[in-house]
Amino acid sequence: MVRKGKGKMADVLIPRLAIIGVGLIGGSLSLALKEAGAVGEVVGCGRGKPNLEKALELGVIDWYSRDPLNAVRDADVVFLATPVKTLATVTKELLPGCKSGAIITDGGSVKGAVAEMIEPLIPEGIHFVPGHPIAGTEKSGAEAAFPTLYRGKRCILTPTENTDPEALALVEKMWELAGSEVVKMSLEKHDRVLASISHLPHMVAYSLVNAVGSYDHYEENILEYSAGGFRDFTRIASSDPTMWRDIAETNRDGLLEMMEQFETYFAELKADIAEGNSEKLFEFFNRSKQLRDAIL
Amino acid sequence: MVRKGKGKMADVLIPRLAIIGVGLIGGSLSLALKEAGAVGEVVGCGRGKPNLEKALELGVIDWYSRDPLNAVRDADVVFLATPVKTLATVTKELLPGCKSGAIITDGGSVKGAVAEMIEPLIPEGIHFVPGHPIAGTEKSGAEAAFPTLYRGKRCILTPTENTDPEALALVEKMWELAGSEVVKMSLEKHDRVLASISHLPHMVAYSLVNAVGSYDHYEENILEYSAGGFRDFTRIASSDPTMWRDIAETNRDGLLEMMEQFETYFAELKADIAEGNSEKLFEFFNRSKQLRDAIL
Repeated sequence: MVRKGKGKMADVLIPRLAIIGVGLIGGSLSLALKEAGAVGEVVGCGRGKPNLEKALELGVIDWYSRDPLNAVRDADVVFLATPVKTLATVTKELLPGCKSGAIITDGGSVKGAVAEMIEPLIPEGIHFVPGHPIAGTEKSGAEAAFPTLYRGKRCILTPTENTDPEALALVEKMWELAGSEVVKMSLEKHDRVLASISHLPHMVAYSLVNAVGSYDHYEENILEYSAGGFRDFTRIASSDPTMWRDIAETNRDGLLEMMEQFETYFAELKADIAEGNSEKLFEFFNRSKQLRDAIL
Repeated sequence: MVRKGKGKMADVLIPRLAIIGVGLIGGSLSLALKEAGAVGEVVGCGRGKPNLEKALELGVIDWYSRDPLNAVRDADVVFLATPVKTLATVTKELLPGCKSGAIITDGGSVKGAVAEMIEPLIPEGIHFVPGHPIAGTEKSGAEAAFPTLYRGKRCILTPTENTDPEALALVEKMWELAGSEVVKMSLEKHDRVLASISHLPHMVAYSLVNAVGSYDHYEENILEYSAGGFRDFTRIASSDPTMWRDIAETNRDGLLEMMEQFETYFAELKADIAEGNSEKLFEFFNRSKQLRDAIL
């Protein structure tokens, strides 16, 4: 039997795990793996001391260091859970501290640009496995972390021709023990899928709020008339602008492709309305309803 | 003192109210006015006998007739709560049964086309007041009706040059007693406001689901990957296709104008992404977040 947090190191999947960025994503992975008895020691690393202290107090991590080189020393797995645009810089900083055979993996929501930036940095004997757990809440910080965040959720791993099969197998096992259903696909497919189900909807919501909020024909803010429906529909337009700027920049190609796909359908609908084509309007709405109801 | 439902007729605002279409909208108005002691007798009228029986059983109405001519006889106010495209036909059917001085008002979610169709039908001595309570839930039928549906919600009345001031005042009083905040505006403004905060978001959601659900580059339904966020965002794409076909047809001009407004912003965002313009992207997302947070 392995005791949570400090069992016999040789028995657990990951004797030492370093979490770079101890927030909702990184902290929840730590808690899930501790609950599963899959980690020995968890080291936290981050910029904010109060957050790391909180993480320690809550048992999310076992100790912390604000120096990446120190945090990753002797770590078997290093999990990068910092914003997408910082991942390459963070990797450069911590690489000299990694032991031979260490596995670095990440949780960034864009994969093509991340792998392109990080893979060339990785030296012989260190492994990198790009990944993305599809989970989250609107909260952030170590306090928001909870052990069941990943349970029943998909985690997409995007191995490339450079990915070590054994490192990939270990990361896959890690996410399974955290409760996820692991799916493997290409970097390109991941970025198209995420562009469709997450990035495009955000662009649509941001545009909608800007369009309606800027309509000044009546010299008053017509958003004042909005009832619950509009507020619910546009909730995601309240998301963090910095995070979404980064996603829009790093998943540029996938996002532009899906935005064009959206524009095509929106233009078709507009033409049907302009023509007053009852039959096509009904078909358009009905097809959408069928597709939507199928994923309920 | 006036007893609910059958007080001294002369003391109440509306001694006899006829509700044409006893569903969520019509039924809730009846219950709200009964609770406020503002109606004497409420007569229901509709096509489905089981729904009318249910309404009777639940005390939503006092009696019913499936014949519009009979239902409106001696009614002081006739409230039309049937689908937008049926309003003119229903009005033609019931007009010969209306007494002199009767006030007809409606709850249709499009006002320009409705007033244009109905006003020419109204004879001397009968009054028509176009209106639209901004309230609703996803449920329908008499069983869904409840007395507080309109409490704290806006009700938009759209008087025209033909609207009788006394009839308008009575309808305004009726909605106030039902708990609404009454706002008066032109037919055109109503249709633009509703196009913005309700009709456009539905068109966007329907287009989004069609665009994503039709993306077949990977020969699998990528909607399967959608997590909670996408499902929440696209909930309104499950709305009734017939109802939305009717709205798209009857609010054609307002909707096309707002769809173009949306397209302009969406195209601006797409250009910013294509150019990788960090500063403009942040501004776009941030402005939207500010607008959205202001209506929370």
